[in-house]
Amino acid sequence: MFITFEGIDGSGKSTQIQLLKEWLERLDHTVTVLREPGGNVVSEQIRQLLLDSTEHIEPRCELLLFTAARAQLVSKVIRPALKAGHIVICDRYIDSSVAYQGYGRGLPIDDIVRINDFATAGLIPDITFIFDLTVDDAAKRAGFRSNDNKTKPDRMEQSGDAFFERTKQGYIELAQNANRNIFIIHAGDSMHDIRDQVETIVGRFL
Amino acid sequence: MFITFEGIDGSGKSTQIQLLKEWLERLDHTVTVLREPGGNVVSEQIRQLLLDSTEHIEPRCELLLFTAARAQLVSKVIRPALKAGHIVICDRYIDSSVAYQGYGRGLPIDDIVRINDFATAGLIPDITFIFDLTVDDAAKRAGFRSNDNKTKPDRMEQSGDAFFERTKQGYIELAQNANRNIFIIHAGDSMHDIRDQVETIVGRFL
Repeated sequence: MFITFEGIDGSGKSTQIQLLKEWLERLDHTVTVLREPGGNVVSEQIRQLLLDSTEHIEPRCELLLFTAARAQLVSKVIRPALKAGHIVICDRYIDSSVAYQGYGRGLPIDDIVRINDFATAGLIPDITFIFDLTVDDAAKRAGFRSNDNKTKPDRMEQSGDAFFERTKQGYIELAQNANRNIFIIHAGDSMHDIRDQVETIVGRFL
Repeated sequence: MFITFEGIDGSGKSTQIQLLKEWLERLDHTVTVLREPGGNVVSEQIRQLLLDSTEHIEPRCELLLFTAARAQLVSKVIRPALKAGHIVICDRYIDSSVAYQGYGRGLPIDDIVRINDFATAGLIPDITFIFDLTVDDAAKRAGFRSNDNKTKPDRMEQSGDAFFERTKQGYIELAQNANRNIFIIHAGDSMHDIRDQVETIVGRFL
């Protein structure tokens, strides 16, 4: 089973991924947790280029770099883990491209979907959670984040409120138009409420 | 005018690009010469990842990295240079993806063409020269190359003779199927003969 978590930074994905992992392990599942972009040597190098660069990166180049990192991750890590019977949980996946580079940067959605299909050789998540939160609240929460000890926002995080507003809206629209199992989580709910919602939904698919 | 040079390494492209540049400058044209992947900060960083990595890079990731570098180069350098009235000469472009990742690595040609079309936002060369040479002769010539002071082959150059044989064949097939101005140059001809052929063809388009 392949589960992805989506949503703008600060929406509380990381906490819930950790809780879901612990719950699944208590049920005796083997769980592989990954984050995008990253999860292997080459994709981490691409991540560095994407997030740490002080250069302006063109939107088409940005999309192709994110999908390059994804292609390597799917082939090297996700498919082998699924084949070994693991439950794979990934922090961000194909829907991030549609939300950030499509709605956020304005690239054509059709192209993004096709390029992701190529990058992943058609690997689609069984369950996707989209964490929805106002941009204001997400920014407040992201500011208090200490899990990666960041002192300043990365290149993507410097894209401005209007960008994140479009991205957030993009997530909602793609969830409404998708014919996959996509669930919108109101990220303003309490941590325990969200944990219960996530476990109930995943439980249905186990 | 946008001119690209294609062919496996050691086919003599670099020498002819230099000769063409000098000839065009004598005719009072402003010429921008570029090489792929590279030509700007971000694309050179991608080049490093593609050519210097000791990691195995998955074919789909490789294609997306090459096209990411291309997207940045087209937007940041090639289009502005063309707009300024320069003649742009590029050492490798979209046909390298079809030959190397399509015929060489075995990825679907249709996907490669579509992703390149996205990366370049549809920018197609006015003239393309494909330098054709046997893989043996190319390897001999590449071995004597001193223009970039390389002491050992890069990651792409380590792909083996069968790979380069498919790539070489790919260039010929794409030239035969293209409805663009693609000219095959017999790279075994003398430097002066090739220079005359290139100048005659470019002269027709000036």
